Amino acid sequence: MKRVAIVLGSDSDLPVLQSAFDQLDALEIPWEAFILSAHRTPDEAADFAQHARERGFGVIIAAAGKAAHLAGALAARTTLPVIGIPVKSSTLDGLDALLSTVQMPSGIPVATVAIDGAQNAALLAAEMLAIGEPQLAAQLNILREEQRKKVLDKDLALQQKLKARTRN
Amino acid sequence: MKRVAIVLGSDSDLPVLQSAFDQLDALEIPWEAFILSAHRTPDEAADFAQHARERGFGVIIAAAGKAAHLAGALAARTTLPVIGIPVKSSTLDGLDALLSTVQMPSGIPVATVAIDGAQNAALLAAEMLAIGEPQLAAQLNILREEQRKKVLDKDLALQQKLKARTRN
Amino acid sequence: MKRVAIVLGSDSDLPVLQSAFDQLDALEIPWEAFILSAHRTPDEAADFAQHARERGFGVIIAAAGKAAHLAGALAARTTLPVIGIPVKSSTLDGLDALLSTVQMPSGIPVATVAIDGAQNAALLAAEMLAIGEPQLAAQLNILREEQRKKVLDKDLALQQKLKARTRN
Amino acid sequence: MKRVAIVLGSDSDLPVLQSAFDQLDALEIPWEAFILSAHRTPDEAADFAQHARERGFGVIIAAAGKAAHLAGALAARTTLPVIGIPVKSSTLDGLDALLSTVQMPSGIPVATVAIDGAQNAALLAAEMLAIGEPQLAAQLNILREEQRKKVLDKDLALQQKLKARTRN
Amino acid sequence: MKRVAIVLGSDSDLPVLQSAFDQLDALEIPWEAFILSAHRTPDEAADFAQHARERGFGVIIAAAGKAAHLAGALAARTTLPVIGIPVKSSTLDGLDALLSTVQMPSGIPVATVAIDGAQNAALLAAEMLAIGEPQLAAQLNILREEQRKKVLDKDLALQQKLKARTRN
Amino acid sequence: MKRVAIVLGSDSDLPVLQSAFDQLDALEIPWEAFILSAHRTPDEAADFAQHARERGFGVIIAAAGKAAHLAGALAARTTLPVIGIPVKSSTLDGLDALLSTVQMPSGIPVATVAIDGAQNAALLAAEMLAIGEPQLAAQLNILREEQRKKVLDKDLALQQKLKARTRN
Amino acid sequence: MKRVAIVLGSDSDLPVLQSAFDQLDALEIPWEAFILSAHRTPDEAADFAQHARERGFGVIIAAAGKAAHLAGALAARTTLPVIGIPVKSSTLDGLDALLSTVQMPSGIPVATVAIDGAQNAALLAAEMLAIGEPQLAAQLNILREEQRKKVLDKDLALQQKLKARTRN
Amino acid sequence: MKRVAIVLGSDSDLPVLQSAFDQLDALEIPWEAFILSAHRTPDEAADFAQHARERGFGVIIAAAGKAAHLAGALAARTTLPVIGIPVKSSTLDGLDALLSTVQMPSGIPVATVAIDGAQNAALLAAEMLAIGEPQLAAQLNILREEQRKKVLDKDLALQQKLKARTRN
Repeated sequence: MKRVAIVLGSDSDLPVLQSAFDQLDALEIPWEAFILSAHRTPDEAADFAQHARERGFGVIIAAAGKAAHLAGALAARTTLPVIGIPVKSSTLDGLDALLSTVQMPSGIPVATVAIDGAQNAALLAAEMLAIGEPQLAAQLNILREEQRKKVLDKDLALQQKLKARTRN
Repeated sequence: MKRVAIVLGSDSDLPVLQSAFDQLDALEIPWEAFILSAHRTPDEAADFAQHARERGFGVIIAAAGKAAHLAGALAARTTLPVIGIPVKSSTLDGLDALLSTVQMPSGIPVATVAIDGAQNAALLAAEMLAIGEPQLAAQLNILREEQRKKVLDKDLALQQKLKARTRN
Repeated sequence: MKRVAIVLGSDSDLPVLQSAFDQLDALEIPWEAFILSAHRTPDEAADFAQHARERGFGVIIAAAGKAAHLAGALAARTTLPVIGIPVKSSTLDGLDALLSTVQMPSGIPVATVAIDGAQNAALLAAEMLAIGEPQLAAQLNILREEQRKKVLDKDLALQQKLKARTRN
Repeated sequence: MKRVAIVLGSDSDLPVLQSAFDQLDALEIPWEAFILSAHRTPDEAADFAQHARERGFGVIIAAAGKAAHLAGALAARTTLPVIGIPVKSSTLDGLDALLSTVQMPSGIPVATVAIDGAQNAALLAAEMLAIGEPQLAAQLNILREEQRKKVLDKDLALQQKLKARTRN
Repeated sequence: MKRVAIVLGSDSDLPVLQSAFDQLDALEIPWEAFILSAHRTPDEAADFAQHARERGFGVIIAAAGKAAHLAGALAARTTLPVIGIPVKSSTLDGLDALLSTVQMPSGIPVATVAIDGAQNAALLAAEMLAIGEPQLAAQLNILREEQRKKVLDKDLALQQKLKARTRN
Repeated sequence: MKRVAIVLGSDSDLPVLQSAFDQLDALEIPWEAFILSAHRTPDEAADFAQHARERGFGVIIAAAGKAAHLAGALAARTTLPVIGIPVKSSTLDGLDALLSTVQMPSGIPVATVAIDGAQNAALLAAEMLAIGEPQLAAQLNILREEQRKKVLDKDLALQQKLKARTRN
Repeated sequence: MKRVAIVLGSDSDLPVLQSAFDQLDALEIPWEAFILSAHRTPDEAADFAQHARERGFGVIIAAAGKAAHLAGALAARTTLPVIGIPVKSSTLDGLDALLSTVQMPSGIPVATVAIDGAQNAALLAAEMLAIGEPQLAAQLNILREEQRKKVLDKDLALQQKLKARTRN
Repeated sequence: MKRVAIVLGSDSDLPVLQSAFDQLDALEIPWEAFILSAHRTPDEAADFAQHARERGFGVIIAAAGKAAHLAGALAARTTLPVIGIPVKSSTLDGLDALLSTVQMPSGIPVATVAIDGAQNAALLAAEMLAIGEPQLAAQLNILREEQRKKVLDKDLALQQKLKARTRN
């Protein structure tokens, strides 16, 4: 199976990305992570994107904050799908990163997920890989079923709590 | 090759979607389009999403405006990748559709593109399909090269215009 | 009297909802609460909404954050009035949930209250039920009078504090 | 059946309200409309709200723009449910009216619909009245079914257009 | 001299108002403070505004948060100048209160100051009273001069700190 | 009576100011208007503000767009009350001018009215002058009464239109 | 003297840039313009920035809309000062381009001017070049004086118009 | 070499500015800092800007919050390039300061950096001074190289951490 590349603009974004790492591990999708900056290491970032497909990557996830150009900069150099995670920083509550990631001009798409939405980035990468991989698709369906059960379990717990309250 | 499904919340969004139709045609990617509303035809929308994979679709593109729930509603019923196009309507300049589409909770991702970004939605769908299709990937690379040439041609035209100006 | 259904997208929203539970209890309006997610349990949510009227509910209150589709998803399946509470989450200060809840397309209304405005959601539900229930209307008028008195008492306390200050 | 009162802050808002008038007429719900300003005729507005219930109104719809206080000002004087329509004006794209209408303090709820969402205000009023009126509820269900059919018809038209295109 | 009335929508706003109280005290301008809510005590608020001029008030300061109608509601009942202080609350960072206070419709002005800008509200009230009071105007000029000196003193302290740094 | 000074950052703002001129004329309040830019004629603007009181002005109205510093720049040089009108320009719908005008730091207040709210600026100036001028206050009360009548007349017209409709 | 490079992300931005061309011509500062896209011609853009200093450019002006990465992408490859002009496009009124241009991470600055602020970009470039060029500085001072005169002339015209009005 | 002037609107902004001081020190660029307020010490601020060039300054950096007029007020009195740092304050997350700084009218540019972007302001000042100073340009290039290395080192550390994880 193709691997997923996760690119971070800064190592300060690692905690945000943890849920992406965990989700990919849970799905047994091979991944690698890189710290590459669109602005501080533009050549390395460009080089990475240009060779990502031939290195066996199927999807790239890019996370960055503020004027978040990283996902777009990678997308400019590859036709692999690039998923952008806007990262909330100390000002403007993530709106700057969101608009900088999602409002891409025609020709170079970035698949943007929610601000700090690392787990969804991982799931979206898995869904992309699963287009041609029925087994992974099946796994994703199981995951959905587990999500569903978790909500139903929480609802059950609430019902019991409410009933207990009524009896008292 | 898997087909692309394009779902519109309303037929008033058809003009916005035209560039997606054209882009997919240019790439010779088979597509179908449907008008389905998350709110006015919720059962049909749910039913569509649930059977999209078995009907041979590989990616779903969903376009909607205002409190744009369509992409999320479809994503809730399928593990196919769902691309959301926030459509600008008469108030708030598209911000409502953008936030309603992109800020999905953990577990159900939507790959969001720019407001009214239909061409990029088509390209993103193509990139997803191309993960396992080297020939389509090659085509996408050619398209990028054409885009690049168009910009360079425009730059050339500008240089000639500026030179002409200097001579006079 | 018809009961009020309170639907939460996640059990993490329970603290926000407490003031709604308390307000309905104070008014002796029967209520039930459910954890149902528009995205993680779409079938259960749809099923709930479709049968809510015949189960004796008169109003549905739905609370959700981020791309808050829950109120709209329930409203799409019932003609009971649905009250939406946008819940503030970790980014964008509640604006995403507000716009996702209130900017509903024509045909499917959601009665939206303030961000985290659970007490008002309960009061609004009571006002709806009171249209045909003069006794409940009378109770609501008494509540208003109590609210008024509380403000006047606080004003009185302030006047005394200010007078004491002047004497010293 | 209780009547619906529609209160406008200014006669310039009449065109926005037309779809509310039409929707209520279509449902054969009796309504009256009034021009009353929270700021220019505060006594008349207060007086209207205070006596609305005894005059046989069941729901109040209030539409206003900019620092839209009208819905809140009426809600402060009645325990009838008040539906607020934020009206877009020449600046800020309706955001000011939306926040002024929806962000009500605890104790005085306003049921807010989308910016310029007059048709939904009418439907929401109908849903409130239908809580105790099974016949009106049945009518609302029929309306939903008609909405659903309209979308399906448009989808059918699109399918035929797309097929015709393919044949050529 | 005319007195200044300071009206708070809630006693939770008292800490924000303290700088207004202090500033008026420092200028020896007589003031009174009242807790009155546009929504919870609309009659008392209306009554207060209607008789404020004859009770000897020259200016009204009104502070409120969220859908902050208080300043506008008072302004609707008096032709005394009303100064509005938008108060920041738990969501939207004060933007809702600012727009609800400042975007008043033609005919009923509110003199809006910055979010939580209580000291400036007091100074603005003083400036209004000083139009016809040369002595108060002179005092305000002295205050400005003191403000100026404070900044210059801080600059001096910075210069000494920077020089000390250079010597080491 | 003190005169009102109206300062415009640019002659392109004259159409926005017309309603202020008309309102002051209607109230027979003497006024003068000046084009002075905080950025292009900072010395003249400073000089104007410094001598405004001794020249017999009682209030200054300042209108400017974009990074609207004019009101603040004048307020920095006078203790006359300064009313700021944020003017909408070609981008950002007036939000930039609003925040630049209203968010003044402690010590230098600006009385901000709505975006493009020139008539209210004139009325606010009149209210300030009327603090010590009972005759002007009486005139302002009459104006309010006229405003009230206009709304009631429009309501009457609406009632007749609605009745006519019913008869047909 | 060093030349100014003006880089456009798209030829559709040429009309916005015209005032920059004119301003530089008026100041007799040599300039060249290029169409280069951060996303469609990333290599050419990178190459341009890397060699801009040795080609004799002293300042780079970059104009782009939406997720405007151009200024940042150039700044990442040169230590020449880069001036960013956010260009307003069809959605979000320029806010996306502004945030994408100005919110650069530490290490790579972009000197951002107002949305569509091309004339100011040219003036800022001139100011930068004038640091070491007293003659250009003198020219800029003359330009300021002309700007000042224009405002004063417009003020004079206004005074005459107002006087004429009074006489009638 | 020309010196850099750093002007703060208030000494509470000193912590934000520290990274600018440090960056200029690291580059051995001489600088001075001043506390000067556009509103509280307008004459001193004006005087400073007017004589900044003749005192040997080459660039001015100005930092201010809220309705941040400081950079614009200085720019109005000098043709030296003025760099504006919008400072985040207690409300609106820095958006007010950003718009007040960047949205300057034509004729008076301000080179705006990110909210709280003091280090970038220093680097931008250095880039401006380096236009005519090849040695400083060389130093800036070295700094970029160091930045690049830091990112690559962090990437290396990440690779080792990930490898260690895999081995276990």
